[in-house]
Parts: sequence; C-alpha cells; structure tokens
Amino acid sequence: VFDSGVGGLTVVRALRRQLPAEDIIYLGDLARLPYGDKSAETVRRYSLENAQFLCQQQVKLVVVACHTATAWSLQLLQERLDVPVVGVIQPAIESALAVARKAIGVIATRGTISSGVFQERLKQYHPVQAIACPLFVPLVEEGLLDHAATRDIVRHYLEPLQQVDTLLLGCTHYPLLSATIAQLMGDVQLIDPAISCAQAVARLLTELGQQNGGASKGTVRLYTTDRPPHLNQLIERFLGEPISAELI
Amino acid sequence: VFDSGVGGLTVVRALRRQLPAEDIIYLGDLARLPYGDKSAETVRRYSLENAQFLCQQQVKLVVVACHTATAWSLQLLQERLDVPVVGVIQPAIESALAVARKAIGVIATRGTISSGVFQERLKQYHPVQAIACPLFVPLVEEGLLDHAATRDIVRHYLEPLQQVDTLLLGCTHYPLLSATIAQLMGDVQLIDPAISCAQAVARLLTELGQQNGGASKGTVRLYTTDRPPHLNQLIERFLGEPISAELI
Repeated sequence: VFDSGVGGLTVVRALRRQLPAEDIIYLGDLARLPYGDKSAETVRRYSLENAQFLCQQQVKLVVVACHTATAWSLQLLQERLDVPVVGVIQPAIESALAVARKAIGVIATRGTISSGVFQERLKQYHPVQAIACPLFVPLVEEGLLDHAATRDIVRHYLEPLQQVDTLLLGCTHYPLLSATIAQLMGDVQLIDPAISCAQAVARLLTELGQQNGGASKGTVRLYTTDRPPHLNQLIERFLGEPISAELI
Repeated sequence: VFDSGVGGLTVVRALRRQLPAEDIIYLGDLARLPYGDKSAETVRRYSLENAQFLCQQQVKLVVVACHTATAWSLQLLQERLDVPVVGVIQPAIESALAVARKAIGVIATRGTISSGVFQERLKQYHPVQAIACPLFVPLVEEGLLDHAATRDIVRHYLEPLQQVDTLLLGCTHYPLLSATIAQLMGDVQLIDPAISCAQAVARLLTELGQQNGGASKGTVRLYTTDRPPHLNQLIERFLGEPISAELI
C-alpha cells in the first residue's frame, strides 16, 4: 500500500479487518506530499517509484491508497507492474452505485473535486452533488475529530447537500470524521473509500486464489520518506495501532 | 516582494499603507508551496530564483515576505543581491520587544515554531510561550475569518497563553484573524509581522534616501508560478484590492 502521506493508513486499517492474515507493507511519501497540486507527470513518476519500492519487497498486490495517485497513475501502474494494482476510486464508486437510490453526494479535497473523476463516472447513473471540503484534512491531522469547531465546519460544508441519500467520502482522511458527518446528515449512507477498497482487494485475491486464509494475524511494516515530529501520533490516529515507521 | 504563496500579500497591503507612492512587484511561488516542510537547501535555491526574478525588474529593495524563506535564505540573499533585502522575522521581533512588559507569546506554523527562530531571539529579554496553530492557515485560505468554528479553534490554541501581554503573529496569514484573536485575548498587544516589516522597509528607504515621496499612488504588479482556480478570491482577501496576477 502506498500513499502520499498518512491518510492511506485508513486503507491499511480496513485491510487488517477484511484480510487479517495478510502481511502488509506501507509506504507514505511524506517528503513529497501533497500530491494534489502537482502535475500529472510528476505524480506518475512518484507513484512508479513508490510502487517499485513495494515490488522490491516481493508484494503480491499493490494498493494505491491516494486519490490523486489513483487518478493519474493507476493505469500506468497496471501496465508496468507484474502484480495486480487496486486504487481507491473505482471501488468507492461501485459501493456508492450499489446503495444509492436517488442522488449521490461526493466530498473530497479541492483537487479531487476539480478533477471531476467521481462526478464523471457517477452522473451516468444518478444526479451528483460535489463539494470540496479543504478544511477536513487539517482538522483530522490536528486530531479535532469531535470538537465543536469540527461540527460547525462539517455543517458549513454539508448543509447544501439536502437531496442526497448516499454520501461518498472521496478522501482517505474523511472516514475519521464519519461519526460527526453521520450525526449531521441523518439517514444517509456513507461510503468509506478505505472499506470499499479493502473489499475490492479481498475479492480480487479470492478470484486469483491468492488470499491468505491462515489463522495467524498478519504483520504490518511501515516506511516513510520523511519523519515529521508528530508522526507517531498521526500513525496511531489513522491506523488505530501504535506501529513505528522506518525512514527510507 | 516574494512569498511561497499569497500570505505575503498582507505585507504588500501594509507597504501600500506605509509607502503609498512606491511601485510594488510581487511574486508568489504557488507552484512550489509550501516551503515550510522543505529542506534549507531547496528553500535557499527557490528564494534565490524568486529574488533574481524581482531583480530583473530593476527593483530597489527586496522583501522576503515568507517566514521559512526568511529563516533559511535572508543572509544568503543579503550577500548575493546588489539591493537591500528585508525579511519578516527581525522587524516583528523588534516590534514585540518594543512593547512587551512581561511575557511574549508567539504563534506560527508548526515549521516556524519547531525551528525555534522566534523563541531563541526573544527569550534573551522576556519569557516566551510558543504555540503552533496549523489550522489557522487553512481557515484563512477558506475565508472563515469570523466563523463560529474559527472562534472555537482560536480558543483551542490560545487558551494556554494566560501570562502573555504581547502576542507575536508569526505567520503572514494570521493578521487576517486579528479581530477574532483580539476578542479572545483581551488586553494583549498583537504584533502583525506585515506592519512591522513595512515599517522596517520605510525606515531603511528613508535612511538610504530612496523613499519615493511623490503624491501619485504607486502601482502593484502581481506574478505567480501557478494559477489555482480560486486565486482571484485569495488575492482580494489578502491584498484587500482586486488585482489580477500574471502567470510566469
């Protein structure tokens, strides 16, 4: 699994629940984040480097746990790597389409929303309302998951979403705000990209006959390309387990 | 004037008030922001390139309106350029020392606080309490200057500052939150780095006999290295005037 930062650890967390026996290697490219504002060419080069690092560790499948990297480089990685590659966009779209009755809401970073990647694919089936929520990532990284200010900001962004019955969380940070979002949105189905992605990985491994059905719990190894002072805190917040990362 | 983004426009705004007849050229290096997490060497290279662009336009003085760029590259620029160079750190420190009676509070981004640049110089004279406020920049960039959530977050960060009588705003975005901060902090003197910097520029130009005392209002030309979709909105918020920027 790779991501530009720590958000992809929500995917690792979901994989641990879905596929408890699998060993997981994670690379967070913190030295070069954020990917959201960088050119497609640069993001492709970084993604390829990250995936190659994982392939050197003999992984059987690569997960691109970053929306920008998935948007720009999934196809390239699928062409270039010898192992299957799963991103975070298509699985979430399929989950949303499986439950939506009327309109679908999509919330994500400014970059993802302006790329139109979710809207393009969803609007063939349902009306779509898309909203950029640039404050959600810094709020989550600050750990203000259930603060009064966070509730105010969630309301500020989501109030226009009156008609949707399904809300796709289009950023790996957002599932940490699920409780606050659910409280405000009431009877709306939330689509967590990490869970959708983990389910897609499980299906694919089963199809390929490569799922590890062993009884012993799998291991997690974390690598990062930079070490900010509050890294351990962030890892525990996103992964839900206190695992230290090795700097490469 | 150069900065990594739009925050330095608060310095342009202060310069326009302090030195209304001067012509100002601004370069915002949006394509390579943020500088805060990048290595000293990289920040020095970027700063030198930005300053060289300004010098090609025959400026008589360069202002480094970015705390990270000031911290890492001010000395280098002063050695390399043929014109005087003013940063945003020393003027704010001098303003704080001129008014502080007991303890000084410093608020800034995580990068600036962990560099210790303000604390090192201030603590020789007064006790210092330094707090990183990583949510202030995204709140200001989202335009939530007087939102209930912003007031909650200001309280969240600043509540520990009980003893200070002077609060140095150590980031060019923070003056936009001055009203909210002042409301919470009560009888505390706020030091705005943009105003301190503009005053330092005015003093220096007067000393050098280079101040333009003409009666006609000076011009502002804005350049950026990237054009995000909401750029015009940001410019008006930070500069207080709707001036469009040219992409270089």
